[in-house]
Amino acid sequence: MSDLKNFETLQSLCKRRGYIFQSAEIYGGLNACWDYGPLGAQLKKNLAELWWKTMVRRSDIVGLDSAILSHPEVLKSSGHVSAFTDPLVDCLDCKYRFRLEDKKKCPQCGSQNITEPRPFNLMFKTHAGSIEDQGAVVYLRPETAQGIYVQFLNVQTSMRKTLPFGVAQIGKAFRNEITPGPFTFRTREFEQMEMQYFIHSKESSKWYKYWKETRLQFYEGILKNIRYREHAKDELAHYASQAVDIEYHFPIGWKELEGIHDRGQYDVKMHQEGSRKNLAYSTSTGEKIIPHVIETSVGLDRMWLALLCESYREEDVKEGEKRVVLGLPKKLAPIQVAFLPLSKKEPLIALAVKLRDQYMDQYFVDYDETGSIGKRYRRQDEIGTPLCVTIDFESLEDQQVTVRDRDKMTQDRVAVDQLTSYLNNKL
Amino acid sequence: MSDLKNFETLQSLCKRRGYIFQSAEIYGGLNACWDYGPLGAQLKKNLAELWWKTMVRRSDIVGLDSAILSHPEVLKSSGHVSAFTDPLVDCLDCKYRFRLEDKKKCPQCGSQNITEPRPFNLMFKTHAGSIEDQGAVVYLRPETAQGIYVQFLNVQTSMRKTLPFGVAQIGKAFRNEITPGPFTFRTREFEQMEMQYFIHSKESSKWYKYWKETRLQFYEGILKNIRYREHAKDELAHYASQAVDIEYHFPIGWKELEGIHDRGQYDVKMHQEGSRKNLAYSTSTGEKIIPHVIETSVGLDRMWLALLCESYREEDVKEGEKRVVLGLPKKLAPIQVAFLPLSKKEPLIALAVKLRDQYMDQYFVDYDETGSIGKRYRRQDEIGTPLCVTIDFESLEDQQVTVRDRDKMTQDRVAVDQLTSYLNNKL
Repeated sequence: MSDLKNFETLQSLCKRRGYIFQSAEIYGGLNACWDYGPLGAQLKKNLAELWWKTMVRRSDIVGLDSAILSHPEVLKSSGHVSAFTDPLVDCLDCKYRFRLEDKKKCPQCGSQNITEPRPFNLMFKTHAGSIEDQGAVVYLRPETAQGIYVQFLNVQTSMRKTLPFGVAQIGKAFRNEITPGPFTFRTREFEQMEMQYFIHSKESSKWYKYWKETRLQFYEGILKNIRYREHAKDELAHYASQAVDIEYHFPIGWKELEGIHDRGQYDVKMHQEGSRKNLAYSTSTGEKIIPHVIETSVGLDRMWLALLCESYREEDVKEGEKRVVLGLPKKLAPIQVAFLPLSKKEPLIALAVKLRDQYMDQYFVDYDETGSIGKRYRRQDEIGTPLCVTIDFESLEDQQVTVRDRDKMTQDRVAVDQLTSYLNNKL
Repeated sequence: MSDLKNFETLQSLCKRRGYIFQSAEIYGGLNACWDYGPLGAQLKKNLAELWWKTMVRRSDIVGLDSAILSHPEVLKSSGHVSAFTDPLVDCLDCKYRFRLEDKKKCPQCGSQNITEPRPFNLMFKTHAGSIEDQGAVVYLRPETAQGIYVQFLNVQTSMRKTLPFGVAQIGKAFRNEITPGPFTFRTREFEQMEMQYFIHSKESSKWYKYWKETRLQFYEGILKNIRYREHAKDELAHYASQAVDIEYHFPIGWKELEGIHDRGQYDVKMHQEGSRKNLAYSTSTGEKIIPHVIETSVGLDRMWLALLCESYREEDVKEGEKRVVLGLPKKLAPIQVAFLPLSKKEPLIALAVKLRDQYMDQYFVDYDETGSIGKRYRRQDEIGTPLCVTIDFESLEDQQVTVRDRDKMTQDRVAVDQLTSYLNNKL
């Protein structure tokens, strides 16, 4: 487990260091919505890019980018209009409205005098076009997967794919969660990274096993505190024959990070029925079949959160002094190298700026000239910067700089003309 | 001008080759919404990445990724709730509802018997939380810029930025357009790439000029048919003192691609007033000032569309035979190299697949074994693939392959062990 005991500590660091801010904070905040700051946005991009490269730079998977605004018929066929609900109850004493959880009493006043549960649909609804009537209702998609299913044949035909093949997508999805939080763990607006793998039904066990193992390996590259949790028969969605979560040990316990689901033929069948279009795939022998689907689905925001939790460390440096470090993987860190002139003297600044500009295209770089060098190191530790390059007065004489390692706290003296190979090697 | 005479030709190519499909097409389509197919999604990603690198890999600009769901108070302060409207009229004869344009007659029946115009707000509205009342109204942001303004001080403080500095963002925005189209030119859901540059008021002319020139240079790298159009005084937004569009010559005429706007202090001032938070920036001398803003704003979807229009060519190859080519820039093409075994014989396929796999991490690659080699070349021309690598029977003997250039249609015979440097050089 990481050193992080609660989300509050992380949330505070994230605001201080430009990782994430509450949305519309100056207006009191918009509940369950977050704005990624400069470092958080870059880290999220880096994670998304890692997933995209891993999933799409293969011969059997292609990408897609479908719309957020969704045709109501798509979500009727998928079952979301009728069945994507949470049970909602009202407290008859204090009038508080809440989601019915295991405890059947009001979380506000403790009363057990509550109404019967009513289903509450979790989709955000809006109206397109100039008339606000039922005919113009559209939904914000509650998952990216449906965009893949309804375009399955267009993708297969235009890209001339043969089974098995997958379609991967990164994009926003929206759920009107009754009980969001804590922090960014459950939000109303979130970014999904989903991949639907279309196969012959007879190969479902083989590919389910393959994706279960492949996705775990992905996490083993960036996280330690992970495990499988197989879904019990009674918690499976009605269309799913097997499902497993990859869980991460958050400060609030083991929680789902990614789901790998055998969805069978359910989705394509439902859309064939709903759209009355033939969605059958023609095999090389001319057979018409409805493909079977294995899905991998993860929330980018939650992966981001897990990575920050995992990276958070507190170290006792010396008596009464604590060092807070985000030990982010070097390839993912939003700042990889910081250039720090030891003092604000012009020639030191000039050399530091020159080096920063030299490496800006290749690495994510930062430059900081304010405060003592010790404070600046601590700031970069909190940001998670793997390497700090300090330019001191001697640098002007001997053309060498000091490179400090975030994790080992070692300091190497490196010649400026050797810096490129040194950084390449370390990063 | 490009060879493209109308959007219909491009739309048909885009569907056939996996660039873009109508959203929810199997359900009759969702008006003004589009799903980017495998090639379109990758091209869009490549363009977004080019913009991001150009704008954010500088020492004076940082990124941000704010939420789509927007607090109503943010959009009240910005003026969008009261003033972001189109004039809407009804035809009293045929009951058709439309946006009042220059021609004051019904576009459906031609009648001039129309109602007085009423303001129609272009924002999509929805409800967050479990109660659909006025208090829970949230909007889908109509532009990404407001997210930057309301987080201006959080970004400045956490990143310790001093004026001048910019904040850049890529993300979805939504406008309930009355008259969307044609094709993806104007859509209800679109992706913006905006940058707000915060400066001292006294430097506004200098930075306006700088951004006007810098953004034109960006386009000169990828497009030819572009020009400036300065806004006349009477078309400036009430808060803007100067504004210029960079226009592209689409098949429907010269149209806006990007806007560069001097927005003055308007936005930050309005949010300071609306939120009653002090949003002043402290200068190094302790002076408190409201920064002045120069904005650059472009739609990623429209940039994508311009690039496809620009790239489209028709060439007479020989009598009665036409070649359709997407001459996409080599660095942006969603497929850069296609590997084509001349026949379906096992050893040819094996070598082609081996080469594809070898270059998959480095380039966007494709593999195609079906149909005559001529047809496959034509397909790759339409896709816009700069290089095709053909593996023939001789390749097995002499370990050489044929590399065909999309534009010159030349064919070079290249040794397999020289292919890496050949491709690096060409791409």
